Amino acid sequence: MEVTRTNFKECLSHVYSAIDEADFLAIDGEFSGISDGPSVSALTNGLDTPEERYVKLKKHSMDFLLFQFGLCTFKYDQEKSKYITKPFNFYVFPKPFSRTSPDLKFICQSSSIDFLASQGFDFNKVFCHGIPYLNQEQEVQLREQTEERRNQHANGLGTPSFISPSSKAPAHVPDEQKDYINRVVEKVENLFSSNKETLDLEPCSGFQRKLIYQTLSWKFPKGLHVETIETEKKERFIQVSKVDEEERKRREQQKLEREQEELNDAVGFSRVIHAISKSGKLVVGHNMLLDVMHTIHQFYCSLPEDLQDFKEVTMCVFPRLLDTKLMASTQPFKELINNTSLAELEKQVKESPFKAPPVETAEGFPSYDTAQEQLHEAGYDAFITGLCFISMANHLGSFLTPPKAHISAHSKLIEPFFNKLFLMRIIDIPYLNITGPDLQPKRDHVLYVTFPKEWKTSDLYQLFSAFGNIQVSWIDETSAFVCLSQTDQVQIAMNTSRYAESYRIQTYAEYIHEKRQKEEKLGQTTKSWGEDGWMKPQYPSSTAGFGYHRMRKRSISPALGEQGTEDAPAADGWSHYSDNTDRKKMKLDDGKSSVEAAESKTSEEWLNTTNKSYSPSLSPSPDGSDPDSQAEGTKQPSTASGRKSQKNKKKKPEAAESSSSLFEVPEVW
Amino acid sequence: MEVTRTNFKECLSHVYSAIDEADFLAIDGEFSGISDGPSVSALTNGLDTPEERYVKLKKHSMDFLLFQFGLCTFKYDQEKSKYITKPFNFYVFPKPFSRTSPDLKFICQSSSIDFLASQGFDFNKVFCHGIPYLNQEQEVQLREQTEERRNQHANGLGTPSFISPSSKAPAHVPDEQKDYINRVVEKVENLFSSNKETLDLEPCSGFQRKLIYQTLSWKFPKGLHVETIETEKKERFIQVSKVDEEERKRREQQKLEREQEELNDAVGFSRVIHAISKSGKLVVGHNMLLDVMHTIHQFYCSLPEDLQDFKEVTMCVFPRLLDTKLMASTQPFKELINNTSLAELEKQVKESPFKAPPVETAEGFPSYDTAQEQLHEAGYDAFITGLCFISMANHLGSFLTPPKAHISAHSKLIEPFFNKLFLMRIIDIPYLNITGPDLQPKRDHVLYVTFPKEWKTSDLYQLFSAFGNIQVSWIDETSAFVCLSQTDQVQIAMNTSRYAESYRIQTYAEYIHEKRQKEEKLGQTTKSWGEDGWMKPQYPSSTAGFGYHRMRKRSISPALGEQGTEDAPAADGWSHYSDNTDRKKMKLDDGKSSVEAAESKTSEEWLNTTNKSYSPSLSPSPDGSDPDSQAEGTKQPSTASGRKSQKNKKKKPEAAESSSSLFEVPEVW
Repeated sequence: MEVTRTNFKECLSHVYSAIDEADFLAIDGEFSGISDGPSVSALTNGLDTPEERYVKLKKHSMDFLLFQFGLCTFKYDQEKSKYITKPFNFYVFPKPFSRTSPDLKFICQSSSIDFLASQGFDFNKVFCHGIPYLNQEQEVQLREQTEERRNQHANGLGTPSFISPSSKAPAHVPDEQKDYINRVVEKVENLFSSNKETLDLEPCSGFQRKLIYQTLSWKFPKGLHVETIETEKKERFIQVSKVDEEERKRREQQKLEREQEELNDAVGFSRVIHAISKSGKLVVGHNMLLDVMHTIHQFYCSLPEDLQDFKEVTMCVFPRLLDTKLMASTQPFKELINNTSLAELEKQVKESPFKAPPVETAEGFPSYDTAQEQLHEAGYDAFITGLCFISMANHLGSFLTPPKAHISAHSKLIEPFFNKLFLMRIIDIPYLNITGPDLQPKRDHVLYVTFPKEWKTSDLYQLFSAFGNIQVSWIDETSAFVCLSQTDQVQIAMNTSRYAESYRIQTYAEYIHEKRQKEEKLGQTTKSWGEDGWMKPQYPSSTAGFGYHRMRKRSISPALGEQGTEDAPAADGWSHYSDNTDRKKMKLDDGKSSVEAAESKTSEEWLNTTNKSYSPSLSPSPDGSDPDSQAEGTKQPSTASGRKSQKNKKKKPEAAESSSSLFEVPEVW
Repeated sequence: MEVTRTNFKECLSHVYSAIDEADFLAIDGEFSGISDGPSVSALTNGLDTPEERYVKLKKHSMDFLLFQFGLCTFKYDQEKSKYITKPFNFYVFPKPFSRTSPDLKFICQSSSIDFLASQGFDFNKVFCHGIPYLNQEQEVQLREQTEERRNQHANGLGTPSFISPSSKAPAHVPDEQKDYINRVVEKVENLFSSNKETLDLEPCSGFQRKLIYQTLSWKFPKGLHVETIETEKKERFIQVSKVDEEERKRREQQKLEREQEELNDAVGFSRVIHAISKSGKLVVGHNMLLDVMHTIHQFYCSLPEDLQDFKEVTMCVFPRLLDTKLMASTQPFKELINNTSLAELEKQVKESPFKAPPVETAEGFPSYDTAQEQLHEAGYDAFITGLCFISMANHLGSFLTPPKAHISAHSKLIEPFFNKLFLMRIIDIPYLNITGPDLQPKRDHVLYVTFPKEWKTSDLYQLFSAFGNIQVSWIDETSAFVCLSQTDQVQIAMNTSRYAESYRIQTYAEYIHEKRQKEEKLGQTTKSWGEDGWMKPQYPSSTAGFGYHRMRKRSISPALGEQGTEDAPAADGWSHYSDNTDRKKMKLDDGKSSVEAAESKTSEEWLNTTNKSYSPSLSPSPDGSDPDSQAEGTKQPSTASGRKSQKNKKKKPEAAESSSSLFEVPEVW
């Protein structure tokens, strides 16, 4: 269902009920751009830490506009044994609410705009008919302003208009305005002595309107209603009406109600996000980190400086997230799926060993046809993201004894994937862990190299030619990370470079140490500590308006599901939320397979389940060097086993996708 | 005529011939926003100096996109005694030329976008079908890159592909790519032994393409043509063809020609601006400073830091400009025109004493109907700007003896208005003088006041209540300029404020002095001097590519027109260009009226013609205090004569327009 400003109000109840009844939700956003600074390959360095990546995305991606938001709700119909879907495609635009409301600026990146244009994106729907929105801070501000004016009114300060220190005294009218104001007063006096009810003054300037309001409220404290009316041509004029006290109050009341309604209209699309958030339901997305960041930034609050604070805010807004790109990149799917791009994933999970999930579009909703790809329409992308999730979840059911064809969104089987957001192109940290500390790979085979800006990747290959295979991640024109295939070669490389003049080599540890020192000098890492010993989140106090502290508490009191009850429907949408800070194991029916929930305290373990049989590896290698724990895009050393080479071949498309960050090569023109 | 990427190439010859045959051109631009920083009222302070205004506009307006460009050409048909018009409405968008070309970012301001949307602007035409463009620097860069690849090719370095230090040696193929590359080589060997002509490789990464190019050019230096082809889905694959040497050369030649064509396509809309510029014809615009700045910035070069350099660049790109808003705000039109906004001006110059000019749309061009206003479509706005110019120019002809109904765009009568661009909302400097120094009003009645941020305009009125009428121009939250009505009150105000604690008053001279000192400390005003003693313009050297120095020289060698020949058609579009650095007087036929060309050496004189009779005042008041030399929006002191008060009343709409900058009052909601 396409939703614009035109039909938003009438659609809203459908949106609410769709969210209410859903088992899970899928979302997707389309933006006006990706990076306003470095190229995407520099923005996504293969050896970023999660903190670095977050800070870069916050700095270089948040000034773009999320202007299309896709929401697809999925409700499982037990009788039909299929999901009933309700897809919504919202067009969003920050139309200024009034002349005094913030006039938002956003950036467009011509490549992104051109890409969307080539996909048939309708920009007129966004810019001419986009649904407005306010973030929490703006909403609070607007409600306070309205409240303030009401109070002024209640205190007898006359028609809500201007707040001026002189409003209880006659207005100071500059000489050149005196004639004009006197004529207005004369006209109003004539109104009183005539049998007319209203008087329309000619359009005039804001300053003149102010003088008129002040003068009339001083000269005629009773019997008048004064209101500014805007014509279709956006000209504003003042209408003066003769009213008795009762009528005046009725009109004021009407005006206040109209204001309240306008205020809700101004909050606009944010109400949909609030509803998603309040539902506490599982929200599925594909490669969803940017979607989550944009959604919070645009509809809740400016993003916090600090990654830890961002995780806390995220848990309040979206208490349960699942990223299908991360799921598809993880055992047991990793072995089965060549290419985790959404379009390719959607194709693959329709084929054996997966099954295309039975779905039906709810009545009154236009149904998407996956054969006619409508990729990059947010509603369609959300829809197929949901399909991918269902197929993969159901595939997990095939490992049960007896196998289950349908695995619900509330099943324990999918909990290991909760709240882990795919990290694009980081070679050794597959995901951002929203509910705990992130993986900290040692990176003791990584060198930080600085060199003249004339150098190309081939020069680095030449420099390190003695060390076998290397992997290069460019940082900027004059520096790069070089991964050696063996850690013990690091010292040799360091030694041979000691007398080099044109370049310089440091270990990763040295690099990080130096960087931290610089940051401390700049005071970038100064934290403020509250009296209670908790570090205070560093965002504007007004963002506390939506009470994420309260919500957070709530989200960390889950009821752990019992064995065998994993498919029972969750009554309140909360009871199955698991606290990943505890390690949980779950024995499955057959006693052979078991699922280990992801461990977030230590960095060494990450879903170490072996192929095919989907039984957990209970002895993860302690140094994190288990090759299966490495992310997509990692080039295997040449000593890799035959199986791994095999895997590498299968993964060509993925390798191609990530190679542009690993090898910054000039493009063939 | 609507021109998009789709029909641009076929329209270009029409555009060229329309410019060629025209007597004058009118232009207008639509932008994605106005100010990315301060509000427009802060951006346009009533007491900005021209330098300050230029720097502010450059800093806060140039990151928006000029995305619709209107051009309307006007050619006078002597037989029909009317103008034949050709209106063009170009949609412009910086579609990236290739993967390696700059990926431009631009800002959108939601209020501007919303405004254009309400006027029915078609954003899809911009974003999906906008004509691409390059500025001079990008064009030079692209041509150089192409040249470089050609030279490499000529030097036998094989198919234009990658520039690599190792291209004369076998490529360094990383181990994990060796299998892949060996298989490609095998396939190519098979091609040689088969009777097939071409071989399409599978799509692969840029890095792999690089290795393939290098390996094939090393292994098969002859007999092969290797080319990267992009599919509709933007996948790139390599096509290898068996060719003899002649065929290979033919293909290379074809490829180069294709590249040349693509390069011209990439320059795109800039070619229209180049044609306008080269024609040297009079370019008319309404309130055109931002249009001129955007046009130069987007299609020529980044704007220079310095106003003087900007003036020089402007004179090269647009040797003759005329701003209808400035014209309408100046004698003898000032007295006749209440409101100089384009829409209102267009209405007024159709009425007596003006005459609606006879115009006809050229065959094949859709004609605009001024009754059905299509305001804010750039083509329409350019069209009516041209109409306004014609009406006003013809009105000047009514002062001649005998009166002339048609005054040509080459007439001396309009020269006084050349190259003076309207300055919005500056109270005492009506225009930016492109061909000379700007007016320097004394401002000795102006005070610079700083105060607590709680202060409102009313507080300032109260503070200065002893001094009669004042005029307030807000700078920021805690400072404003206050104009007193009499200069001799300045010292009194200074004395009374000596012991004030909450606020501080400085004279304008003190303020400017302090500001200059600060700037000098920051080194913002450091200039570089060349060996020849000329100050070097401070822009990137590459912008010299379009040779504005050469053009400038040309533009300062005009042939002065003789008396009575003012209506003769200009043969080369240059002969009637007047050098404003010399003072010129022109006696008109009747010997009573004469027109004085604007004098740019001194700041005191500005079209000091008296009302109605349009004869020049030959004795301009030496201190520039002649009230007629003040701009629109200036509040007259209360001692003003009756005639002036009368004028003030007539000018209400204009006063309303400018009051929001002069009085920063809260808006009625």
